[in-house]
Amino acid sequence: MKVAIMGYGTIGSGVAKVLDTNSDIIKERLGEPLELKYILDLRDFPGDPHEECFVKDYKEIAKDKEVKVVVETMGGVEPAFTFVKAMLEAGKSVTTSNKALVADKGAELMKIAKNNNVNFVFEAAVGGGIPIIRTLTACLTGDVIEEMSAICNGTTNYMLTNMEQFGSDYDEILAEAQSLGYAEKDPTADVEGYDSCRKIAILTSLVSGKNVDFNEIPTEGISKITATDFKYAKSMGYSIKLVARSTKVGDTYTCRVAPFLVKPSQMIYHVAGVMNAVSVRGNMLGESMYYGAGAGALPTASAVVGDMVFLARNVDKHVRIGWSAEKLELADANEQKFRYFVRTSALQSNIENEFENVEYANLDLDNETGFITQEMTEHEFNERKAALGGIISAIRFY
Amino acid sequence: MKVAIMGYGTIGSGVAKVLDTNSDIIKERLGEPLELKYILDLRDFPGDPHEECFVKDYKEIAKDKEVKVVVETMGGVEPAFTFVKAMLEAGKSVTTSNKALVADKGAELMKIAKNNNVNFVFEAAVGGGIPIIRTLTACLTGDVIEEMSAICNGTTNYMLTNMEQFGSDYDEILAEAQSLGYAEKDPTADVEGYDSCRKIAILTSLVSGKNVDFNEIPTEGISKITATDFKYAKSMGYSIKLVARSTKVGDTYTCRVAPFLVKPSQMIYHVAGVMNAVSVRGNMLGESMYYGAGAGALPTASAVVGDMVFLARNVDKHVRIGWSAEKLELADANEQKFRYFVRTSALQSNIENEFENVEYANLDLDNETGFITQEMTEHEFNERKAALGGIISAIRFY
Repeated sequence: MKVAIMGYGTIGSGVAKVLDTNSDIIKERLGEPLELKYILDLRDFPGDPHEECFVKDYKEIAKDKEVKVVVETMGGVEPAFTFVKAMLEAGKSVTTSNKALVADKGAELMKIAKNNNVNFVFEAAVGGGIPIIRTLTACLTGDVIEEMSAICNGTTNYMLTNMEQFGSDYDEILAEAQSLGYAEKDPTADVEGYDSCRKIAILTSLVSGKNVDFNEIPTEGISKITATDFKYAKSMGYSIKLVARSTKVGDTYTCRVAPFLVKPSQMIYHVAGVMNAVSVRGNMLGESMYYGAGAGALPTASAVVGDMVFLARNVDKHVRIGWSAEKLELADANEQKFRYFVRTSALQSNIENEFENVEYANLDLDNETGFITQEMTEHEFNERKAALGGIISAIRFY
Repeated sequence: MKVAIMGYGTIGSGVAKVLDTNSDIIKERLGEPLELKYILDLRDFPGDPHEECFVKDYKEIAKDKEVKVVVETMGGVEPAFTFVKAMLEAGKSVTTSNKALVADKGAELMKIAKNNNVNFVFEAAVGGGIPIIRTLTACLTGDVIEEMSAICNGTTNYMLTNMEQFGSDYDEILAEAQSLGYAEKDPTADVEGYDSCRKIAILTSLVSGKNVDFNEIPTEGISKITATDFKYAKSMGYSIKLVARSTKVGDTYTCRVAPFLVKPSQMIYHVAGVMNAVSVRGNMLGESMYYGAGAGALPTASAVVGDMVFLARNVDKHVRIGWSAEKLELADANEQKFRYFVRTSALQSNIENEFENVEYANLDLDNETGFITQEMTEHEFNERKAALGGIISAIRFY
């Protein structure tokens, strides 16, 4: 079985390393070896152990009938989309680690794969090494999925874990994460929740069978979370996690990415540092959780190689996943109900006037009061919050 | 796609319920419905919604060419083995929830399935609703698995969780678990670790590709754990869990089922009550964990139905899993190294004489001393323990 890698960066070279290191066991499990024939990259890699594999034109790979499985680890929507489309149309199956490509073009590429009787898979695009995609599409196939909650961004989980542990403020921890390489120079995609948003859109598409437009998902990041918020959380016995959630409502889902207050009896409370986890509730299965390294070259490459084995086992047939191009109309996120923790400079009498039954979370800080609301819809909360005024911060309970 | 269920007990009737409740989404994911045509059971079920499906002779199912997928939920090795073998030989794929059958006859049934170009799968046999089997055989296929640690028996995990929470002794909690239906009248298979032993044997067979004889795995249960052991554990910041472990040693594995002291920074510490989890370390993936309901009619049935969808998707081809009948020679479990917590009536001077550098875990109890050893092999520990004498209990650190 001849294979090709498009894009020899961190993940792509990780894939080559996994194929080299574990060639024996892969051959035993598959019944034949996975032989790397091409690596597509515009750069030169003199002295690389796979030096003879490098090509600069994707068409060389597309036209070689011997290659049945292609890996895309270039990142970004273009030219990845053009190259992947060409491979599928040339009768090759493709796996990608590229969440931008999958969130934007997943349903379209799935259709092209089906029409060409090949497969398009993307285990590494969500949750890094955690096999959440195959769990949803090939294991929990007897369940209606009622809720998914994902800690699916290692950068923000690392930052929040450290803010909690050291009592530090956001800017300080961001600078540290950047210096360690855990956060990018422009951290926007991670810290504002855009990365998590694309991932929960993909997961929701898979469980609903329809296509979720990630632009429609209300998304808040962690950049407004402060050391004081963590002090309040701790005083209540909670932590703060950036959670991407999807909840079944009637025939559709409602999605949201936001920081949530979580407590120790909830398994996701214990997901620390750069680790990721996806909690899934099925109507028959009940609660389950899948935990592991959400990023990193080798864990991600491990997921890509797992996909390659799957593709090699199904080289002559399209495996239905059930992700159509039909748009999923998400339920109104303003109708979701939560309990909220609120910090405000408003007077206690005004708080009780606007929110009626509240519990107080008192840190004895000057000029502010922390309180917990009853459960209410986003819509109602936003109205009462505006009427109260003096809001310093507000965080939902998970 | 016509299907049959053999054995209409708790799990079998759960499978029928999942097929009924979730028929729409199963049809959407598979592209065709799973239609229940036969239920094999010697008993009568008058008024059952599937009354017209019941048969008493398995040969009726075997000879019906329309049936392509058969579920075995009878339990026990015979007559389950005879029936499953007949179905595979008649060209039908089979899924079972029966761990006794899989631990005893798995490799043999796998070979029969291969020879008949059908599939034999058993997601529900280990970890109930947790999709650990497909994770190992279809997801982590690019990894050498270096270690697996499973909390895979709900009865004992429920009992240990309650002993910890309420400070109760073993007998009291066992009686309560029996009255609630969480433990059987004869609880031996659960509390002595035999159930966990079969499960780790199956998992080790799958990752090694060879056949593990569960009789060779050193197995200790929880029946000797006391409220005082938990007091010591708590004083050290630990809990006690029954863990089935498998660790790679050279080209093979060493397996063990025993109570272990675990701490909060280890994810399995947080697996409470009847929940199960399997922690898996791959040489590329690193740490991962799979958590969910390890038992119960509907979670287990959910895993069976997931298998049915897999079988229906692969009705015309045998999917290689790589579990041969060749015996895996396990590594010598006496060479495994641990730190041990020991309670003894021996004098402190004798403890220091036999074990040299120890730490003390003092509860100020009369007539006993608790101490923690350095890391050493089982072999060495057993020698020193015998020389010391007066041993009240000894528990390994995870």
